[in-house]
Amino acid sequence: MKSAGGRLLAGLELHRDAAQPLHRQLYGQLRTQILTGSLPSGTRLPSTRTLVAELGVSRITVVSAFEQLTAEGFLRSRAGDGTYVDTLWSDNAPRQPLSRPPLSERGAATSSRGADLSGEAPQAWAPAESESFVASQVAASAFPAATWKRLLGRHAGSTEQFMNGYGDPHGHRPLREAIADYVNDVRGLGCTPDQVIVTSGAQQAFNVLAVLLLDAGDTVVVEDPGHISGRLAFQSQGCPVRGVPVDAEGAVLPDENDVESPARLACLTPARQHPLGIAMSPARRAEWIAWAERNGSWIVEDDCDSELRYRGKALPTLFGLDLSRHVITVGSFSKVLAPSIRLGYCVLPEDLVEPFASASSIIGRPPATVLQAALTDFLSEGHLHAHLRRTRRLYAARQDALLEAIDQRLSRRIQAEQVDAGLHVMGWLREPLDDIEVARGLAAGGVYTYPLGEYRVTRRLPPALLIGFAGTAEDHMPEAVGRMAAAWDRWEQLGARS
Amino acid sequence: MKSAGGRLLAGLELHRDAAQPLHRQLYGQLRTQILTGSLPSGTRLPSTRTLVAELGVSRITVVSAFEQLTAEGFLRSRAGDGTYVDTLWSDNAPRQPLSRPPLSERGAATSSRGADLSGEAPQAWAPAESESFVASQVAASAFPAATWKRLLGRHAGSTEQFMNGYGDPHGHRPLREAIADYVNDVRGLGCTPDQVIVTSGAQQAFNVLAVLLLDAGDTVVVEDPGHISGRLAFQSQGCPVRGVPVDAEGAVLPDENDVESPARLACLTPARQHPLGIAMSPARRAEWIAWAERNGSWIVEDDCDSELRYRGKALPTLFGLDLSRHVITVGSFSKVLAPSIRLGYCVLPEDLVEPFASASSIIGRPPATVLQAALTDFLSEGHLHAHLRRTRRLYAARQDALLEAIDQRLSRRIQAEQVDAGLHVMGWLREPLDDIEVARGLAAGGVYTYPLGEYRVTRRLPPALLIGFAGTAEDHMPEAVGRMAAAWDRWEQLGARS
Repeated sequence: MKSAGGRLLAGLELHRDAAQPLHRQLYGQLRTQILTGSLPSGTRLPSTRTLVAELGVSRITVVSAFEQLTAEGFLRSRAGDGTYVDTLWSDNAPRQPLSRPPLSERGAATSSRGADLSGEAPQAWAPAESESFVASQVAASAFPAATWKRLLGRHAGSTEQFMNGYGDPHGHRPLREAIADYVNDVRGLGCTPDQVIVTSGAQQAFNVLAVLLLDAGDTVVVEDPGHISGRLAFQSQGCPVRGVPVDAEGAVLPDENDVESPARLACLTPARQHPLGIAMSPARRAEWIAWAERNGSWIVEDDCDSELRYRGKALPTLFGLDLSRHVITVGSFSKVLAPSIRLGYCVLPEDLVEPFASASSIIGRPPATVLQAALTDFLSEGHLHAHLRRTRRLYAARQDALLEAIDQRLSRRIQAEQVDAGLHVMGWLREPLDDIEVARGLAAGGVYTYPLGEYRVTRRLPPALLIGFAGTAEDHMPEAVGRMAAAWDRWEQLGARS
Repeated sequence: MKSAGGRLLAGLELHRDAAQPLHRQLYGQLRTQILTGSLPSGTRLPSTRTLVAELGVSRITVVSAFEQLTAEGFLRSRAGDGTYVDTLWSDNAPRQPLSRPPLSERGAATSSRGADLSGEAPQAWAPAESESFVASQVAASAFPAATWKRLLGRHAGSTEQFMNGYGDPHGHRPLREAIADYVNDVRGLGCTPDQVIVTSGAQQAFNVLAVLLLDAGDTVVVEDPGHISGRLAFQSQGCPVRGVPVDAEGAVLPDENDVESPARLACLTPARQHPLGIAMSPARRAEWIAWAERNGSWIVEDDCDSELRYRGKALPTLFGLDLSRHVITVGSFSKVLAPSIRLGYCVLPEDLVEPFASASSIIGRPPATVLQAALTDFLSEGHLHAHLRRTRRLYAARQDALLEAIDQRLSRRIQAEQVDAGLHVMGWLREPLDDIEVARGLAAGGVYTYPLGEYRVTRRLPPALLIGFAGTAEDHMPEAVGRMAAAWDRWEQLGARS
């Protein structure tokens, strides 16, 4: 019969002034000693009286810790013979804590998909800030915060929102109606409220569609360059992607003679190719719809920032042109309102609605009811239209200011042209540099952009930066671009020295 | 050169009193005729003057519709020779709208995973209502709505929440700190805030973990019977599940001689086996941790309703007992607050935190910032503790009322025993009926429960219903159980006749 005595007592350190009560401290430290094997199974513990005396604590402290450890199977009392470490926990020789090698030392610990995903998130090295050139940045100051607060407040106190469990898996019915009105009006979709499902942003829709429509191994056509997180949603489901180039009419169709079987799905950005900004021509739209019909393939139409258009009319969505029901349109309020609101939608052919809702209730579940209720009022009371009018003016002015500042401060490094829609311009590098290196170099100087290279699938592209203009106020633009120019100079000098 | 004339005009129907302006109506109807091929390519349209006269509309209406259709590639003007349907759209013979066969006629339209998921959502036939016996129902009336409204209001108007893009992919930092304090205090996890990631409920955590840790084909051990949507998260990633039975000590370990390779992950509910309600014994906890360590497998510990305990002390989490860093704990505020709030968390070993955040920023993204900020205050100002104290008392009384009412009205049909924790009792059927049939029969009478049969993987179990008690007020319980008894009688009579 081993006895603990000295070793146990030497390892205990109780702090009277800690937030945690003494009996919890004693419990935790004894548990760790047992789990790590430094108190091996079968060890007899000192008597309550000894511990009280040695530790200078009350009897109730010791008894309370012992009781908890006994209830949890760490200790066992033998009548008239004291308390022992139970055999459950430390049959083996003393173990080191953290006996698993760190992930970095064993490649197979996460899945191959997990490995694909890690490090891909651009947030890691280009954090969004209140003012930055990150392309997904919106004007925080333009957000109608008082209105939003009022609408949230209108619904936040209602107990109704808590009465229906997780909420309707299709989304809040009044919001589906308001979204149908909105997309029919602004984007000409021609859908009923029954075809609309509310999601937590576009990404959730991509994830549900990937699970719903694709088996692992099914090929997906994506634009090259194209939307990063859309592509990752499909890749994370084990689906290989095939990039198609983008020309002046938009995404080019895949060469059907070139492959054994047609792709099961194509993910496209017809309204405004992401990131290049090209609007798909009517002819190309017709070709894609015919492609889907001919092959029985799906088209996922990412329509996410189509409303932010400064000049010219938007062309109608593929969804509105497709009579054969192969098109699914995904939209989001991240760009027109704010990404942190996490609200979006998916418009589906009728017979996909229920399968999508079932899959969504597993994969995503609808967003918080209070947010859906507030957005309903925001749409139906006309606040979104007013906000769009305001931000279109604001962003058009910010773009002009950006282009002017680039012209003055950065024209020897990049060439940028006005865009008709969206939140960023393409800044084409005048020298044959690696754009990912340039973006990292600028990030080291606190200036955040996205490099075009991150958007490529396999195709080599001329180097460019996506320069977002929505997050920087017009009168700050010269200074912000000046900082970019200075960061670039510093990065170049560092490179020249090394 | 074909001319449209009569056929075109016969197909047009414009409504002066419709909400849509006349030019949009004309545009839409012409577009449909072109898309469906009833106006084939090359068709010459009647002149503007003819249309104005025939339709009784203004010239600007016709011109505006023609301009839009021309911009979109549907029409083409030939100088001095009128307007023609462009060749883009209707090269083929007239097509029927809806040329894709409905999904129901082609099994391969959705993925095999999609097919697995459809119809699985129990919401479809057991909708949560303000008062029902659905096991995930909470007491809507007990929710501290005024406090929640105040806290949401505190953050809803701040523009700060809109300044950092999608928000920190780990979650709002102050909330991670508040959750770490909470789980360390209430559940003894012993984690740092850096190990906590905020999610939109537990389901999102399961989905991210499935992508992060598993490759398609990897086996996952699940409890049989067990959590439905947790299992589906893994199945939807193409991972086969292997059910292990549950005995009086909790989930039984898989027989390792029986299989070629050990499972890569086990998903367990040690605090309170879902749905049976058994707390895993200390010995069984030690065995599972040793299993994970021996096989290099992961344990996902679903700790979702562990805080709602009415009697006895909760045993510590596997996370807190595991020194070898193979355990990930998933928690949710769906049960302690409300499912429609969509907030949960995942506590990870240090080296999984960044991979999880990367994958999560693709698969889920963090919940809306305003909800995270409000929950931070709700936790740090002690409202959750107060709410837990109140609901524990409330639910204990509701459980007593349920058991008493069952005793009086349903004891010849079911046998139910008091549970120490959670939101439902198991109502074991006294007759060898199919519990899924019974639940559907009751649902037809407006009484919603979940049948145990829905929770099984492969094992046959005695028939039972999960009867939730949290959603029904104490003084309504006799009547609600009376309705259940009446619905049961009616269902039985229908069956006897058929």
